[in-house]
Amino acid sequence: MFEARLANGNIFKMIVESIRELIVDVNIDCSTEELAIQCMDSAHVALVSMSLSQSAFDHFRCDRSLSLGLNLPNVSKIFKMMGRDDTMVLKAEDSADKLMLMFENDKSGTIADFELKLMAIEAEQLGVPDTPYKCSISMPSSEFQRIVRDLQVMGDTCKISCTKEGLKFSATGQIGTGNILMRQNVASEKEEDHVTIDMEEPVELNFALRYLNFFTKATPLSPTVIIKMSPGLPIVIEYPIEQLGHVKYYLAPKMEEDEEE
Amino acid sequence: MFEARLANGNIFKMIVESIRELIVDVNIDCSTEELAIQCMDSAHVALVSMSLSQSAFDHFRCDRSLSLGLNLPNVSKIFKMMGRDDTMVLKAEDSADKLMLMFENDKSGTIADFELKLMAIEAEQLGVPDTPYKCSISMPSSEFQRIVRDLQVMGDTCKISCTKEGLKFSATGQIGTGNILMRQNVASEKEEDHVTIDMEEPVELNFALRYLNFFTKATPLSPTVIIKMSPGLPIVIEYPIEQLGHVKYYLAPKMEEDEEE
Amino acid sequence: MFEARLANGNIFKMIVESIRELIVDVNIDCSTEELAIQCMDSAHVALVSMSLSQSAFDHFRCDRSLSLGLNLPNVSKIFKMMGRDDTMVLKAEDSADKLMLMFENDKSGTIADFELKLMAIEAEQLGVPDTPYKCSISMPSSEFQRIVRDLQVMGDTCKISCTKEGLKFSATGQIGTGNILMRQNVASEKEEDHVTIDMEEPVELNFALRYLNFFTKATPLSPTVIIKMSPGLPIVIEYPIEQLGHVKYYLAPKMEEDEEE
Repeated sequence: MFEARLANGNIFKMIVESIRELIVDVNIDCSTEELAIQCMDSAHVALVSMSLSQSAFDHFRCDRSLSLGLNLPNVSKIFKMMGRDDTMVLKAEDSADKLMLMFENDKSGTIADFELKLMAIEAEQLGVPDTPYKCSISMPSSEFQRIVRDLQVMGDTCKISCTKEGLKFSATGQIGTGNILMRQNVASEKEEDHVTIDMEEPVELNFALRYLNFFTKATPLSPTVIIKMSPGLPIVIEYPIEQLGHVKYYLAPKMEEDEEE
Repeated sequence: MFEARLANGNIFKMIVESIRELIVDVNIDCSTEELAIQCMDSAHVALVSMSLSQSAFDHFRCDRSLSLGLNLPNVSKIFKMMGRDDTMVLKAEDSADKLMLMFENDKSGTIADFELKLMAIEAEQLGVPDTPYKCSISMPSSEFQRIVRDLQVMGDTCKISCTKEGLKFSATGQIGTGNILMRQNVASEKEEDHVTIDMEEPVELNFALRYLNFFTKATPLSPTVIIKMSPGLPIVIEYPIEQLGHVKYYLAPKMEEDEEE
Repeated sequence: MFEARLANGNIFKMIVESIRELIVDVNIDCSTEELAIQCMDSAHVALVSMSLSQSAFDHFRCDRSLSLGLNLPNVSKIFKMMGRDDTMVLKAEDSADKLMLMFENDKSGTIADFELKLMAIEAEQLGVPDTPYKCSISMPSSEFQRIVRDLQVMGDTCKISCTKEGLKFSATGQIGTGNILMRQNVASEKEEDHVTIDMEEPVELNFALRYLNFFTKATPLSPTVIIKMSPGLPIVIEYPIEQLGHVKYYLAPKMEEDEEE
């Protein structure tokens, strides 16, 4: 039997929202340790990795590891019905073909429960690289969202370069060229406004703006985003969920010669 | 001659908004007592009943009962021009083919006046049942709105059941099943957050969610909605307008066997 | 060389927004005195005139008069990337085919720079009439915006009449007739809520509501709009930019007989 109760159910809603434009059907892997997702996006371009520790839950019981095969558009529709302050409960029998979701609101005395059909989804075995990176940048997630949204006006590809000067996002297209530079900034009072750049050597890579934009759907999960780059390796865009988990996206760089137009 | 002046003209605007998706052409019946509407919706499925007492008005004069035949989409367009704090004046001669509407704003010194062509609309004589009901529920109108909006995701039909447990809204469809339970709740400080259930015997009826949703356009008129049900009878969804009137909707239950799919 | 730095870059953004639905390609004329635009709208119906004095800028250097030929939809896209509190810098070489735009935000440490291709646009020589007008009205720009937006529901043409009674906007169509009267109003505490009417003789003219609506895109630039009319002459709709400039629109009146339907 699996049963998990999350006082701030909204966290789970935000996790669903952060991946539902990338993935249609997904396995949530439940173990005694955590809920976890690891899968490629529908177009097999990006990799999504999610973990939410059992310690994030008020109550967590998982007798046997199991995979909940879910259709995310349907899950997302059900989470639209979750109120801002609702508690969420997930329940499934060990060999069940149904997931029970409950949203409770003590204040209004409302209880909503849903029975969602589970699906058998073939699991992919994916190795996520865990190498040290040459550059690691921490910056406000809202700024990152704004930059990759805005740069879409200039072109389809974003060059991200990390140098001593700072972290630079560039795009070129018919209109002209645009560059946005974030400098290291640890001066402001709020820690979440800080920009910290930890660079071993400069790195410059190109990425599809379309995908960077998909990733920023995770912005509500965390005030801070962590960006990691090494030459020739996929970029990591990580949104920490308090100290309880994360949503991470991996995206391979574009080769400048053949992919740019 | 008919002349009526409403300091809070916005009430009338909200009444128009509450019915304009259900009805195209409508007679507003003016008497010495009240302004009233009673008519079936365009598809002849639901019945709408509105009353606004003469005591709601700062000035009210109606020499002879008369019916103002109005095209609601046009009326709605004109009310879009009403400011938040405008006073409204309605005027018509006894045998006139025109309605005069005036919106006055003392603060900005603006006066807007409109001349609207009246139509001859055949009046339906409708008897509204006034029987005692087995269940009568009072709940926050915004919660009712949220529930019937949200449940549309699950299916087209909503089962409403009133039992000792509370008032339950259920819908089933391709995704699965959803139930939302409102329990009696008189604990919160604000009276408008209360849920009170007055039940003589349990009732369970099915309704088209599409119509329940139309009815919730009246939500801005009242913090509270009153729901009345008896086996086999149309449900009543009532939005009281302070102590000065109401908008009520009547909808016949669906027969479970032939209408569900 | 041309270089101009505007601490409140948002003013320039609002100027671009105020004209971009009327004009596609435009010359910004830079002199030692000001930045200026003077051109007909794309349909050659209305005339747009903009001036922003060099004293509006923190730094202003213009060695030689030059015209920057810009495609406004592109400029507008770039200004979408400007943050609320950004400083703007414009830079161009004397015979350059590129304009450099920079948006700086000291708080977040962000610098965005854009290189925009310049175009050769044939300059029109336009004489703007500078005659005294029979009526001059000053009113809140937001009220003017609301009135011309709302009246579109009634018809395509707006009759504007200035009399002793006040300034009246009227439109007639299938629904009926609507009149909105603004009376002189100097009572309210805030000066920007005042309506002042300076009338030598009554004037009544008809205008295309579509165009009046385009003009109200300048509303964010100024709390007050100044309207000037004389019989048979184009109306002037002026939005002062603090004491540093203006955006003005000129529109010829419609002849009542042949243009109304």
